[in-house]
Amino acid sequence: MGQFARETAVEKVSEGRWRGALFEGWRIGAVPNGGYVLALAGRALSEALSEGSAHGDPLAVNAFYLAPTTLGPIDCTVEVLRQGGSTTHASARLYQQGELKVVVTAAYTDLTRLSGPNWQQTPAPDYPAFADCPVRGGPKLEFRQRIDLRLAEGGDVFLNQQPGGGGVFGGWVAHADGADPDPIGLLMFADAFPPPALDLVGLMGWVPTVELTVQLRARPAPGPIKARLRSRYLTEGVIEEDGEYWDSSDRLVALSRQTAKVRLPK
Amino acid sequence: MGQFARETAVEKVSEGRWRGALFEGWRIGAVPNGGYVLALAGRALSEALSEGSAHGDPLAVNAFYLAPTTLGPIDCTVEVLRQGGSTTHASARLYQQGELKVVVTAAYTDLTRLSGPNWQQTPAPDYPAFADCPVRGGPKLEFRQRIDLRLAEGGDVFLNQQPGGGGVFGGWVAHADGADPDPIGLLMFADAFPPPALDLVGLMGWVPTVELTVQLRARPAPGPIKARLRSRYLTEGVIEEDGEYWDSSDRLVALSRQTAKVRLPK
Repeated sequence: MGQFARETAVEKVSEGRWRGALFEGWRIGAVPNGGYVLALAGRALSEALSEGSAHGDPLAVNAFYLAPTTLGPIDCTVEVLRQGGSTTHASARLYQQGELKVVVTAAYTDLTRLSGPNWQQTPAPDYPAFADCPVRGGPKLEFRQRIDLRLAEGGDVFLNQQPGGGGVFGGWVAHADGADPDPIGLLMFADAFPPPALDLVGLMGWVPTVELTVQLRARPAPGPIKARLRSRYLTEGVIEEDGEYWDSSDRLVALSRQTAKVRLPK
Repeated sequence: MGQFARETAVEKVSEGRWRGALFEGWRIGAVPNGGYVLALAGRALSEALSEGSAHGDPLAVNAFYLAPTTLGPIDCTVEVLRQGGSTTHASARLYQQGELKVVVTAAYTDLTRLSGPNWQQTPAPDYPAFADCPVRGGPKLEFRQRIDLRLAEGGDVFLNQQPGGGGVFGGWVAHADGADPDPIGLLMFADAFPPPALDLVGLMGWVPTVELTVQLRARPAPGPIKARLRSRYLTEGVIEEDGEYWDSSDRLVALSRQTAKVRLPK
């Protein structure tokens, strides 16, 4: 079992209640990464919904971040909202020491049974191979102990400390221990890249997530995930961040969008 | 008071419980439009959160659609999750005859007090004026009794019944009675355009929404809303639909994204 699977593991403590812990290694500053926290909820949902249905894969997951989490134990309540033939809806709430931290709503399915028309307007970006991309973007963050992030597009701000103004970061991301990605891992990777807002306001900016939605399209093939993140509209300190994720066979496996606030350094 | 305000009005029946009704005029086939239904929840949230704070405007709203709604009374429970200085988080649940239909999570704020950096990668699209754009896109839908929709981009599929394959619809939308838009109206307009998937699979396709997230950026100026909707990735019958909305002064006022399923005619 890889480090990500171990450090998002949850245990059922009673009907509808799960317990896990937020581990060292995933923090940005003092706060565990929001995608990592979402993945723990996603794991509890997956285990809860695999009990009563075959719907163990996230199809669409939304999280609102109410308060910063901290290291240590975390409780997750799971409520099944509606069970359907191909989709089960459920909500999850994450608490630490009784304080509500994150609220998650989700539709789960069996991604291997999706069936319908296919079309793609945009191919996967043509980046250099994972091994040939430079490691950039805040390598001193604790979070870099757990993810191996390589930038192929838009990373110059990390070289010269000057915002490039493009609002795009692209490249590759993988588990640092080489474990292969799974659908729950995609929930974490969907918040793993530095926010493109830093290419607009500079590296000292602070970009807290208000809400994050991840759409999954397929279980990823083994190997690193190729990703492109883009922001288009920063309005009075509010920004969207859109991510696209492809597996090592260049198949689209997920999309993400978050609403974030952009705070300038004092 | 305009028709939209009247037909999304809610009444507080007890602590945390609101009641309204879904009216004729808003249906697509037998089912009230999802944006209209979301707007009713948005109204209940706005009234509930204006009680204890000045946070009467949606900042980010997510809805999962569990079951189709029908005309008639609808109950809305509102739970305040966390009240902060600039943002209040809350959830709402919509029930009809005791059946849970829609689950909403939201961050509310006072949009007039947003303050921070601004940047825009893309200007508003340069469409002909509202009055000069043709009315297209399923004009026989009941929903067209309540919205005045004009297409300026990508509407050829409605003229010749042949999918254009672009995955983009753009144009204008306004309340049919000429009422000016407000932030709650933007929640409805965020699901008012025909799904761009119809330009991929043809007009007989059926595109039910799984979840819809709307980000608001500003209270809209009086006048029609300019919008562009785009889909990029249709994967085994799952598609995203991204919308951008500008007010009559070409200021970005909202973004939307939904996860939808695409069903072909049998």
